[in-house]
Amino acid sequence: MANVTLTEEAETNDTSTIDNDNVTLARAIYRHDFAGQGWDDATWILTSAFIIFTMQSGFGLLESGSVSRKNEVNIMVKNAIDVLFGGLSYWAFGFGLSFGTSTWSNPFIGIGNFFVNSESDDMGEVFSSFFFHMSFATTTTTIVSGAMAERTKLETYILFSFLNTFIYCVPAHWLWADNGWLKGLGVVDVAGAGGIHLIGGVTGLMATLMLKPRSGRFEESKELTAMGSPTNALFGMFMLWWGWLGFNCGSTYGITGGKWKLAARSAVNTIVSSVSGGSVGIFLSYTTKKRKLDVNYLINGILGSLVSITAMCALIHPWEGIVIGSIGSVISCLSIDLMVKLKIDDPVGVIPVHALPSMWGLLAVGLFIREDTIENISRYNGLLYGGGWYMFGVQTVAVLTILTWTMVMAFVFLKLLDITFGLRIPLHEELLGLDLVEHSINGSYDKKTSELSGADGRILEVVKTDGGRMYNSNLRKLSRTVTMGLPFEMLNTQSITNVNVTAKP
Amino acid sequence: MANVTLTEEAETNDTSTIDNDNVTLARAIYRHDFAGQGWDDATWILTSAFIIFTMQSGFGLLESGSVSRKNEVNIMVKNAIDVLFGGLSYWAFGFGLSFGTSTWSNPFIGIGNFFVNSESDDMGEVFSSFFFHMSFATTTTTIVSGAMAERTKLETYILFSFLNTFIYCVPAHWLWADNGWLKGLGVVDVAGAGGIHLIGGVTGLMATLMLKPRSGRFEESKELTAMGSPTNALFGMFMLWWGWLGFNCGSTYGITGGKWKLAARSAVNTIVSSVSGGSVGIFLSYTTKKRKLDVNYLINGILGSLVSITAMCALIHPWEGIVIGSIGSVISCLSIDLMVKLKIDDPVGVIPVHALPSMWGLLAVGLFIREDTIENISRYNGLLYGGGWYMFGVQTVAVLTILTWTMVMAFVFLKLLDITFGLRIPLHEELLGLDLVEHSINGSYDKKTSELSGADGRILEVVKTDGGRMYNSNLRKLSRTVTMGLPFEMLNTQSITNVNVTAKP
Amino acid sequence: MANVTLTEEAETNDTSTIDNDNVTLARAIYRHDFAGQGWDDATWILTSAFIIFTMQSGFGLLESGSVSRKNEVNIMVKNAIDVLFGGLSYWAFGFGLSFGTSTWSNPFIGIGNFFVNSESDDMGEVFSSFFFHMSFATTTTTIVSGAMAERTKLETYILFSFLNTFIYCVPAHWLWADNGWLKGLGVVDVAGAGGIHLIGGVTGLMATLMLKPRSGRFEESKELTAMGSPTNALFGMFMLWWGWLGFNCGSTYGITGGKWKLAARSAVNTIVSSVSGGSVGIFLSYTTKKRKLDVNYLINGILGSLVSITAMCALIHPWEGIVIGSIGSVISCLSIDLMVKLKIDDPVGVIPVHALPSMWGLLAVGLFIREDTIENISRYNGLLYGGGWYMFGVQTVAVLTILTWTMVMAFVFLKLLDITFGLRIPLHEELLGLDLVEHSINGSYDKKTSELSGADGRILEVVKTDGGRMYNSNLRKLSRTVTMGLPFEMLNTQSITNVNVTAKP
Repeated sequence: MANVTLTEEAETNDTSTIDNDNVTLARAIYRHDFAGQGWDDATWILTSAFIIFTMQSGFGLLESGSVSRKNEVNIMVKNAIDVLFGGLSYWAFGFGLSFGTSTWSNPFIGIGNFFVNSESDDMGEVFSSFFFHMSFATTTTTIVSGAMAERTKLETYILFSFLNTFIYCVPAHWLWADNGWLKGLGVVDVAGAGGIHLIGGVTGLMATLMLKPRSGRFEESKELTAMGSPTNALFGMFMLWWGWLGFNCGSTYGITGGKWKLAARSAVNTIVSSVSGGSVGIFLSYTTKKRKLDVNYLINGILGSLVSITAMCALIHPWEGIVIGSIGSVISCLSIDLMVKLKIDDPVGVIPVHALPSMWGLLAVGLFIREDTIENISRYNGLLYGGGWYMFGVQTVAVLTILTWTMVMAFVFLKLLDITFGLRIPLHEELLGLDLVEHSINGSYDKKTSELSGADGRILEVVKTDGGRMYNSNLRKLSRTVTMGLPFEMLNTQSITNVNVTAKP
Repeated sequence: MANVTLTEEAETNDTSTIDNDNVTLARAIYRHDFAGQGWDDATWILTSAFIIFTMQSGFGLLESGSVSRKNEVNIMVKNAIDVLFGGLSYWAFGFGLSFGTSTWSNPFIGIGNFFVNSESDDMGEVFSSFFFHMSFATTTTTIVSGAMAERTKLETYILFSFLNTFIYCVPAHWLWADNGWLKGLGVVDVAGAGGIHLIGGVTGLMATLMLKPRSGRFEESKELTAMGSPTNALFGMFMLWWGWLGFNCGSTYGITGGKWKLAARSAVNTIVSSVSGGSVGIFLSYTTKKRKLDVNYLINGILGSLVSITAMCALIHPWEGIVIGSIGSVISCLSIDLMVKLKIDDPVGVIPVHALPSMWGLLAVGLFIREDTIENISRYNGLLYGGGWYMFGVQTVAVLTILTWTMVMAFVFLKLLDITFGLRIPLHEELLGLDLVEHSINGSYDKKTSELSGADGRILEVVKTDGGRMYNSNLRKLSRTVTMGLPFEMLNTQSITNVNVTAKP
Repeated sequence: MANVTLTEEAETNDTSTIDNDNVTLARAIYRHDFAGQGWDDATWILTSAFIIFTMQSGFGLLESGSVSRKNEVNIMVKNAIDVLFGGLSYWAFGFGLSFGTSTWSNPFIGIGNFFVNSESDDMGEVFSSFFFHMSFATTTTTIVSGAMAERTKLETYILFSFLNTFIYCVPAHWLWADNGWLKGLGVVDVAGAGGIHLIGGVTGLMATLMLKPRSGRFEESKELTAMGSPTNALFGMFMLWWGWLGFNCGSTYGITGGKWKLAARSAVNTIVSSVSGGSVGIFLSYTTKKRKLDVNYLINGILGSLVSITAMCALIHPWEGIVIGSIGSVISCLSIDLMVKLKIDDPVGVIPVHALPSMWGLLAVGLFIREDTIENISRYNGLLYGGGWYMFGVQTVAVLTILTWTMVMAFVFLKLLDITFGLRIPLHEELLGLDLVEHSINGSYDKKTSELSGADGRILEVVKTDGGRMYNSNLRKLSRTVTMGLPFEMLNTQSITNVNVTAKP
């Protein structure tokens, strides 16, 4: 918020010939008539936030295209819920805990500005700042939805998306509030590598560990990892890619003074980092996957490099962006198989894309950062520019404390939800798919009586479960193959083989 | 248009210490060197209009995903036609009837600026203003397309989209032109609750009443109301959601002076209103739909609240936005079932989303409005702020006059089109679907000979109709079930049951 | 780049009453305190570039929806590759060859600024300019991908997208660099009719001629020209349409001085040109296609008019935009059938949309252009405004030289790639589809052993080819009909007819 104030300092390289009196006069005039020039910064912030909100749809499509088709609507709904309930809590208390400036506000947490409102002269700053940070907060929650895909109870998820704001807004205070303790140490996280991607990714890790893998995930992996719609997933990736440009450029928090120069540098570093990251991902796929271009390597290469560049997009040379993005891409792509080996089921790659590259991005600051003489965003040099280990230490502290906070808080919240409302749906509902079970897409399913009805309202089956397997009313066992991604009218047919063959869309 | 003029007044709270002479000098300098500062306002208007145009695609996808699959391409085409022919007529006469400033212009209608052009100094203002308002006009027409889905003759629709501009541009003059009679009374409609959503929604109501329900709509409702692609519908909703942010913020019509503060407040009110509206929609669905989250309740909750907040997004407290949006959401969700009870067939919910919440939004101004001291957009207080019934009266007059105008004009235009060219396609074409009949998607159909040909060019069937039922050449009756959403090659198979089972995509 | 400098001239119509001394003072103040005002231009350029990048996804969806379903993922991947490898080469050498300003730079080619970086005061200008032009360069490459769809080897395509930057950046220097020889002659190409669409379209022509038509394209045309997803294609068209607004408006390269007026005029000319172009396309379809509205005519009508208006969108009257766009639409629509007659296989219409209307647009400048007194973009009048044949001659020279350069360079690069790595995949891989062959979508295929495996990992078939026909291991011939757009599990079924009927999605 404090950043929205007007830059009143004149350019340092004064080549003008006017005498000092006139310069004084000029400054006075500037202050007088251009007090309203805050609009140049505020509208940049607003426009960036508009762009960031489009990333919600990008995440939605990426996730919807990556899961099996029987859950593709449900995951879109969850991405809307992230904005709805995460937005409500960010308005009610999230912004206040991050950026509240009452006297109780301290380096660990902000207090004040709850139920955000403003009537005074600072209305423009308060509202644009809140709107911008709300787009950050809901993005963090959306990241988690991917790790919880295909097996989480929707009502519990709604409560989680409301509460997750709390997990986000405390470290956001540490990093970005004027009196945040990490900011005091000189930490650099320009556009949320730690504040968004590390928190979101690690919360996702905790959630998937607590939920356990999807049924059959590590038995018949091929089918479960087949994307329902690779085209939608790629389109979602494209939306995230372009949105990221606005995200990183908007994080200069304005354009006046020298901020526009940093925004332009952000744009270039973001794009060169991602083009190198995507190229590296393709190279890794060709070399490790028998000369196939695995769509997941392309997506993870691009998104992993974008995550790793967010920490200091505005402050480095383009060639450094290429180095950082390429390493982020390698981390992101190689950890796809690592997750499988560790038997961690992460349906849309939240840990490889967000959790791990964000750590690398934060630590890389310790190596590559230079003092920023334009807007004073960074105050020290990193290891490679003669600043010694100080910045590396600060960034390491940031990673460790955010990691610890997030793991503890996510565990507490998710455990509470699991005990009270339950996190995971029963097996037969998982096999039927959440589109049917939660939204009555292609028919309806009654949770009490276990009655399945077709899209035309006719009751088709009564589902029974026996020791974790699913049977229809005639106790014919329904294999997973049949139910994956099919409208459940198929379940009623005599010949399961025939259904299997004909209904792959 | 007049709003684009430069704000030359200094800030009122003058805390500067410079003497009056210098202030005078400063103003002179400002006027002299910054006459071109209109660019800050004009580019905000242009950027907002860019964003608003993306909403056409959002409407397109929402409608395309909501109708049955046999009409999903046709409705996308209709959304393009809205911009094409609605845009042509807005350039030719719409802008002139709304904002023309010739001497014949009067409080009821504008006259002048037909076939928009400008060569003079005001080129920037005229062109950015026209471009912005064209995005409004074509949005109004697009709203109507949803109510006419799945049964309207395409050629007639083209004529309608050209003429609909006239229905829109007269009330737009009343509301927004400097000499509009409603503006003179002090009406407040910041971003088109009345000017866009009421007109579009009521035109849609008239159209669906005149077209009559889709064949079988109130016999076997389940099938006809199943969305062809809920994923596309939700993605379209997301696009509208983000576009609405630009829509409402852009309606401050600039950023200079205090307009940027109103834009920031618009952004916050728009987002908090929609997050509460969406949450209320989910709550209503859980309580009335056996704990299912009906996708339509989510969509209507979000969009209904967005419509209801447009009338005064820039002028209220966020908590008021939450109240207004929540009520808008309740109106929008509950009227889904109301439409079914009244046997009004509104395929993508135009009346619940646009017509009814916009009336609420306009009337709410009468309750919640306060005098605007920043940009003088509102001149009186509403009922809750001690202004008495005046503003409520003005807003009621606005609702009633716009409603009456729209109903009468829509009836006249649609009736004329119905008599001359015909609004509705024949039953057998409706059953075959407009994608096939109008665009030869998945085959072709000859309107004269009733010959159906497959995608490979081979003639499959000759369609005959007998008393409103559809038969193929062997006079086997083709049930509706078979033709819904299927490429018509299916019609040729022996076993209709088999086709039904296997081809649900 | 030079355009980003600050406009220091006062407005010409000086109506102020302040005396000359104060004007001098005002200018000094302006220079002193507002040296940073470059941000107004730079952020317009950045924002426009953000919008232009979204067009990559628009092209991706248009192409993905237009090809057969077995290639829809592959073409999305190719659109990502255009940005990845085209972006890398543009950073490494493309920008330097276009806009390098070292002493070796000359009217034919730029030299300098390789591996783009900037640390000095011009950081803002260099980075925003590079970012903007990179979006141009990658757009040019993306255009080509459409012409190469459904039959190009992916690895070769990666190399091509890296090299294609060279084909683009030399004519870009001629047209837009301060010392470019065409710019010296007074050529007008505001937003890349020649610099982007002519180069991209003609490279596409050369590529499709060298690749030869898709197998069976001119034998059983109906099937091969059926769009895999007309809905996605139309959505892609919408994205391009809105992106084009940002593209053409951003090409004023700023908003200060009078540039914002030209941007507003660009917006209006772009939209009126496209609405007339789309309307003309619909009219042509109704008159030549038995009263069907062919989706391709709609798409080509809109996009063809948009291409033809890019050359002088900022400089003409709206009615001239309508004339130019309508003619562009006629050229674009009628050349669809021309391509078929000439047996040129252009899967998504690159030549009708980009190559031909861009020539018309460049030549139309010679007719309609007037001297630009606002920002001096055009220095002469065209034929219709009394300027004689000079401008028509200059524009003709531009068309011919760019055409020749592109044909020669594209031939050289593509021939080299064809000889070394091979451009075209073998027939049986083309029949199986690139989604399966290159990305293992819906199974996997081993290029060495010709083994097909299902999505569940089970080996289904061994493919053999005999004289260009494809057989499975039992030497049963697999007809093309069967494999088009089907997941290949279908190939294993006994009854091919049955598969064909049931699996059309």
